[in-house]
This record gives sequence, C-alpha cells and structure tokens, in this order.
Amino acid sequence: MKTIDILQKKIDALALWEEEVTLERNHFLKVSGSIDTNLYYVVSGSLRMYTISEYEEHTIRFGYQGSFIAALDSFITLQPSLYYIQALKKSQLKVISKTSFDDFIQHKPEHLQLWNELLGALIVDLLEREQDILISAPLERYKRVLKRSPRLFQEIPHKYIAAYLRMTPETLSRLKKS
Amino acid sequence: MKTIDILQKKIDALALWEEEVTLERNHFLKVSGSIDTNLYYVVSGSLRMYTISEYEEHTIRFGYQGSFIAALDSFITLQPSLYYIQALKKSQLKVISKTSFDDFIQHKPEHLQLWNELLGALIVDLLEREQDILISAPLERYKRVLKRSPRLFQEIPHKYIAAYLRMTPETLSRLKKS
Repeated sequence: MKTIDILQKKIDALALWEEEVTLERNHFLKVSGSIDTNLYYVVSGSLRMYTISEYEEHTIRFGYQGSFIAALDSFITLQPSLYYIQALKKSQLKVISKTSFDDFIQHKPEHLQLWNELLGALIVDLLEREQDILISAPLERYKRVLKRSPRLFQEIPHKYIAAYLRMTPETLSRLKKS
Repeated sequence: MKTIDILQKKIDALALWEEEVTLERNHFLKVSGSIDTNLYYVVSGSLRMYTISEYEEHTIRFGYQGSFIAALDSFITLQPSLYYIQALKKSQLKVISKTSFDDFIQHKPEHLQLWNELLGALIVDLLEREQDILISAPLERYKRVLKRSPRLFQEIPHKYIAAYLRMTPETLSRLKKS
C-alpha cells in the first residue's frame, strides 16, 4: 500500500476527519492571501493550485483522487498562503485540521515516520519541478512530466497541463502528436 | 536555538559524525550521476549545488557555515543524484551517513520531530524558490531573495548569486545599485 493510503486509512480508523466538503467545478477551496492550515484528502475529482504574479497565473500543482492537497505554505508556517486552490471538476474532499493532524502524528512514532516519508517524496517532487522549470526546451519538459506523472494526462484538462508545463496548448498538442 | 543547531549538537553529543572532510576551493564534494546519501554539516566555508542541462549550468542552492548540505535526491531516494556540489571557498564539513542518521532520528521521537521541522522549512524554501523561478521581472526576483536570504549576499560570490537569480552579473550589479 502507498504511504498516502496508509495514512489516510489510519486517520479514517481514528475518525479524525472533521468534515467532508464538496466543491463544484471552478469553485475555490481557497484564494490567495488567506490562511488555510487544513490538510485535504481528495476522495474524487481534481483540483489545481496556482499563484498570480505580474498579472499572470502560474499553475504549479494538481490534486486528484487519492492524493492530499493543502496550502502547504500556510500548513507549515501558519501564515497567509500565496495559493489559490480551485476545483477543475466537481470534487469531494475530506478535511483534517492542522491541530488534529499534529496530534495524530505526535500520537505514534509510526505516524510521524509515515508523514516523514511523505515529506521526503514531496521534496523529491519539488526538486524535479525545479528542474522542469529551469529546462527551456518544451519537448524535454513535456517528456519529463509525462514520465513522472502519467496520471496527470488522464486526469487534468489539456489547457492546465500546458500551463503547468509553461507552454501554449497548441505547443502541447504538437508535442503530444510527435 | 535554531533547529539545525539543536540537531547538530545532538549528533555531536552522540559522536555520530563519521568523519570531517576538507575541500579546497573549486573542488567537488560530488558530481552528477553519483550516489551520495551522506548528510553534511558545514563547519566553515561555502558551497554551491548545481545541475547541467542543455549544456548550461543551473545553480540552485548554497550551503554555508551552520547549514546542512546533501544531494537531497540521493539522500531521500538512494538513487544517483542529479547534482554537483562544489566548494566556493575552502570548506570544512562534518559527515554523517544516511544509515547513522536514520538510526539517529528513529532513536527518539524528539529527533524525528526536529528532522520533520527541518523538512518543513526546506519545503517552504522550495516553494519560495519555485515562485522565484516563475517570476520574470529581475528586480522582483532580486528583492525576494534579498529579503529571504540576506546572508547569501555576504557569503556567496556575486557571479553565483547572479546565476542563482538567473540574470547576468551586470544586471545584478545594476539592481544592487538601484
């Protein structure tokens, strides 16, 4: 079983989810500037995280069925978050507060260890992402992400994948065909 | 005391450092493609991490006195690392192997908790860095990094800061004066 699934089932077993939220397509889980220290588990649907700087959107991460999503900056620092989180289709999320989650991981070294593994995997993702952004050739960026996250291409609308890859939808279409 | 200092002193107290390494200026701690699962504590000096893609260097991180440095991808996944780590001046490092470090953090929940805090701080850094790279205005990138890491500007040679900020040394000079 994957680390996320194990964690999720343990939170389930302890009945620590505080609520279940349903988001309609295009609706926001949160907007930039607000504090959100919850951790969300995606039961169904898909979402994107993005920022706006210089009047431009930067789509930087996705959540889909079976993944956690959070305004990570807020979750870690308890400060206002930079991120928008928006549903790309109707999505159902289970919610655990930071306080409950902290209690949960402090409760057993095993829980802390699982969380540690997830943080490690997230760091590897972020390092991969850093490389993606620094690579200027669109084909190279496309191939890297296709290899790393094939599921993205099944779950996320074309235009948002293009935004994530920092290319136009037309360029992405051309690369997919080649 | 900062989390890094606490961790470092605890590793000290348990005599878990395996060796001390001295690197001359411009010498490499590791090169891309090799596995290196050690964690290093910088006793003195400064180092940079970089990758090469499309025949171009990308300077992505620095280590200086009082910080940890590691080929994080290797350290987490045990696979070959993408990164070069090079001394920018004569540097002294204390070395702990992944195996010893894992034993250390498993030894006490308190250690795991400290490590967890460091991973959290690293994630926040990586998110900030992602934003840096996505922002196209050089002045904005400069101001963000100056605010976040003022120490960088004391410790690291100008040309490497410029590389990290993805601008020419001339542009950086101009921004510093403005």
